[in-house]
Amino acid sequence: MTTLKVYADRLSQPSRAVVLFCKVSGIDFEEVRIDLMKGQHRLPEFKEINPMGQVPAIDDGSLKLFESHAILSYLATAFPGVPDHWYPADLVSRAKINSILDWHHSNLRFGSVSFVFNSILAPVFGLPADQAAAKKGEKLLCSSLSTIESIWLGGDSKFLLGNDQPSIADLSLVCEVMQMELLDEKDRERIMEPHKKISQWVENFKAATSPHFDDVHDHLYKAKAKFHNKL
Amino acid sequence: MTTLKVYADRLSQPSRAVVLFCKVSGIDFEEVRIDLMKGQHRLPEFKEINPMGQVPAIDDGSLKLFESHAILSYLATAFPGVPDHWYPADLVSRAKINSILDWHHSNLRFGSVSFVFNSILAPVFGLPADQAAAKKGEKLLCSSLSTIESIWLGGDSKFLLGNDQPSIADLSLVCEVMQMELLDEKDRERIMEPHKKISQWVENFKAATSPHFDDVHDHLYKAKAKFHNKL
Repeated sequence: MTTLKVYADRLSQPSRAVVLFCKVSGIDFEEVRIDLMKGQHRLPEFKEINPMGQVPAIDDGSLKLFESHAILSYLATAFPGVPDHWYPADLVSRAKINSILDWHHSNLRFGSVSFVFNSILAPVFGLPADQAAAKKGEKLLCSSLSTIESIWLGGDSKFLLGNDQPSIADLSLVCEVMQMELLDEKDRERIMEPHKKISQWVENFKAATSPHFDDVHDHLYKAKAKFHNKL
Repeated sequence: MTTLKVYADRLSQPSRAVVLFCKVSGIDFEEVRIDLMKGQHRLPEFKEINPMGQVPAIDDGSLKLFESHAILSYLATAFPGVPDHWYPADLVSRAKINSILDWHHSNLRFGSVSFVFNSILAPVFGLPADQAAAKKGEKLLCSSLSTIESIWLGGDSKFLLGNDQPSIADLSLVCEVMQMELLDEKDRERIMEPHKKISQWVENFKAATSPHFDDVHDHLYKAKAKFHNKL
């Protein structure tokens, strides 16, 4: 079998989710950096891999695939040795995980991307920031964090759905929440402060995936310092 | 086993996808109408089924589930006798279908919902229509239709991914395209006219799922007449 290639930029939250998944699952892979700040995702040679021009994408020799959730469920089922808790074979457990992942697109992710782009990334890249979109994004982001806490992190649950080990739903959503690291401290605190369960859940996930978690997120921590010096 | 309950309003495109799937797959189910125009999705008794207050949702006795894609993949794998082409057991085929379904959320669906809501549903319900959102929605809707044609309906492909039988990705996306039926004819033609392959694909899907397709969409055709008389 050809070595799995993962096309990623660790500045992108779904890219980090896929890279981190390969590391914690012991999947042998080669990471190919697609530098979003240099526009490498728009190059014709990358569009041969993913015609949408987005990261992450994978190529395992028999399949080129994009969309991080589809990639994660494929890796979890097609690669031997991935621990069952990431994407259980049990159909009811799997359906609940899929439901969270589907919900994610138009809720936590949409809110987070709208807010983070319009409050920090746009000014860094010298692009116009849409203040109304930032405001709507923050509202959706905050209501999504409340939903996660009330629906999926009930009681003393360590992970989503009352599980004591993480699934790919924890992975995808935690990597999204980590994108808040890029924000101005004032913005980040305003958003995260009312959500103690979210903060505890991120800590639980970090602990469960250590030391890979910080290794994969190191690029984000460095980008934050660079971005804020630039402003 | 308890009879599967499907909570749906056939005015909603993902609701139609789930109801149609049960019919074409021969799954025994009871449809529970949740009337969106009467606000029944916001009632506490429905939130016991789906805390998000959205349709569709299902309850099969052992599992309450929301998000139409998660529901479709669950039904296709947990219920015996569903033909394999809807959601193939082959992991590579399945991954490609999941990739389209994931792409759908922030592309075809987001564009379609933004445009249809702000150009027909808002005025019908007496709500303010956001013209800028309608314009952005139409742009995303049209680029999504072009993407489907160029990436997944290449050559003389009858269905997505070059398949000669439909999958749950065809089902979800065709039900979304059908929402254009609600539009003013002028709007519908402007959007659909350049996309001949899309129109052919919808026809192929109708033929493959006849007579259930028109049965499930009849409510939409009637709603169109009612809405346009109201304006």
